[in-house]
Amino acid sequence: MPENNDASAQGSYVLADQPYQRDTNYIETRITRDGLDGYPVEPGRYRLVVSYACPWANRTIIVRRLLGLDRVISMGVCGPTHDKRSWTFDLDPGGVDPVLQIPRLQDAYFARIPGYEKGITVPAIVDERSGAVVTNDFPQITLDFETEWVDYHRPGAPILYPADLREEIDEVNALVYRDVNNGVYRCGFAGSQESYDAAYDQLFSRLDWLSERLADQRYLVGDTITEADIRLFTTLARFDPVYHGHFKCNRQKLSEMPVLWAYARDLFQTPGFGDCTNFDHIKRHYYQVHRDINPSGIVPKGPDLANWNEPHGRDKLGGRPFGDGDPPPPLR
Amino acid sequence: MPENNDASAQGSYVLADQPYQRDTNYIETRITRDGLDGYPVEPGRYRLVVSYACPWANRTIIVRRLLGLDRVISMGVCGPTHDKRSWTFDLDPGGVDPVLQIPRLQDAYFARIPGYEKGITVPAIVDERSGAVVTNDFPQITLDFETEWVDYHRPGAPILYPADLREEIDEVNALVYRDVNNGVYRCGFAGSQESYDAAYDQLFSRLDWLSERLADQRYLVGDTITEADIRLFTTLARFDPVYHGHFKCNRQKLSEMPVLWAYARDLFQTPGFGDCTNFDHIKRHYYQVHRDINPSGIVPKGPDLANWNEPHGRDKLGGRPFGDGDPPPPLR
Repeated sequence: MPENNDASAQGSYVLADQPYQRDTNYIETRITRDGLDGYPVEPGRYRLVVSYACPWANRTIIVRRLLGLDRVISMGVCGPTHDKRSWTFDLDPGGVDPVLQIPRLQDAYFARIPGYEKGITVPAIVDERSGAVVTNDFPQITLDFETEWVDYHRPGAPILYPADLREEIDEVNALVYRDVNNGVYRCGFAGSQESYDAAYDQLFSRLDWLSERLADQRYLVGDTITEADIRLFTTLARFDPVYHGHFKCNRQKLSEMPVLWAYARDLFQTPGFGDCTNFDHIKRHYYQVHRDINPSGIVPKGPDLANWNEPHGRDKLGGRPFGDGDPPPPLR
Repeated sequence: MPENNDASAQGSYVLADQPYQRDTNYIETRITRDGLDGYPVEPGRYRLVVSYACPWANRTIIVRRLLGLDRVISMGVCGPTHDKRSWTFDLDPGGVDPVLQIPRLQDAYFARIPGYEKGITVPAIVDERSGAVVTNDFPQITLDFETEWVDYHRPGAPILYPADLREEIDEVNALVYRDVNNGVYRCGFAGSQESYDAAYDQLFSRLDWLSERLADQRYLVGDTITEADIRLFTTLARFDPVYHGHFKCNRQKLSEMPVLWAYARDLFQTPGFGDCTNFDHIKRHYYQVHRDINPSGIVPKGPDLANWNEPHGRDKLGGRPFGDGDPPPPLR
């Protein structure tokens, strides 16, 4: 999870008097058709390591499922909480990933770069042959799933990054990343009232902008689900359970912003979204790991999340969620 | 403020693995008509020291105003935040209370009991002659305003503790105190997940019970405002701005509980309630003082509180807010 950067490796996310700055130095090796970085697209070779708690990892879980890449890329799931040495495979029998045979994700990072000093983050893709991390460059991972792994997409997979809309998707993504995806962290980990206030204003202005954009348009770009919707969704899913209280993003709850709330429910009820969302992992991760903003580690019981399944009424705006394709089959 | 007990004097409100237990040892001297404790009812003699932040002090501010005791009991107002030595008169010119001529409320406690070791709490009533605290026994203070100071009530003052309803008011107050007034603190200052979970369940069960009781009845007991409404109101006023996020009382916001929310707005819009409520002081107090649950001291910008003035529609339930009396005149 990218917020697990140098600061968090010492257990502190908030730096006094400092705005929050995400460490965005990732391992940028790519898995491509041409194998230019030494890692060609190859079914059965790679393992995606995630946590359901992490919004950035959650993107990759959703895209992998929507595209049917679950048939060719295996997935290891870390438990929702971790200590200063970061993510572990504590959900697996014996606390060891059954494929990689390691107890901690850091072991795969060290296999790639001995003494690796940057954040041990999810999502990470590990080469099953060498046991070494290939990449943890989360914004690139989903784009590469969509454009480099095309030969292995399932029949009927949606086109999540259509060539003719890429410019618009990139533009929206850049604004959503700055003000929303990362904006909530800039609220929650602000080291001063001033930096919090500024991040809060930027966040809610952007949410107002998104509400306006989505008022009469079912999806963010074009009339089908795209990468842009996935990136916004994983933040919205965490809004009421975590960001509203834990990160002080409390002008309104998501459930009090009618357009965004209906939009988020629409996606949640679409195969590949809600069935890849784990509210329990989400809540436990944030409240138990960020001890410097929640020293007790107590996890709130609320809010009631049953309302995610209420009718959203967005069908009347038209749109074709999967374009000319189909939803993924139900999860086993 | 009663939560400023021994624990908080050391700056910690949460005790690991412990449920929160309020220190309820107060100075129980009473001001009465018969002067049995040495302090007779006497206009112009006593000073009520409060903070607008504190729900227990807020009760006394409201009752004093509703009954017109502002003409005979003066009021000193402490600033919303304080350090380990508790409440100060930092809002006054020179940081000194203009009547008592002291910078810190503790000086009045020490004048009564040298080396006083219990919490320096508001509300406190100080004898202006000696400069010593007479009482900080908050549940008794409002009852004595209502029953011992009757000769000095304004013409048209409501009867807030009517003799024929006292038993029912006491019963309701006991439940509301345990589960709601103090219940929110037991959520927020819980030292373990178990004690938090139990307090949360008890709080929301009681709020459900209150919603049911108030669904077709305008006030808690009888058909006029009583002490019971005042005691519930000061907790409800803090619910969305503070308790929902800061104390993790987050099953719903107050504004998502339709009956209680309309009831709270009805009171807020009644002279003596909203005009004695200071959301700015409330928010700054809790978020800046309780550093062990909010280490950064950052105060959330939300929620939007303009909705307190929206129509409540409770008039249709009947009820006579001030009984045979009248509202207090507008504040200067």
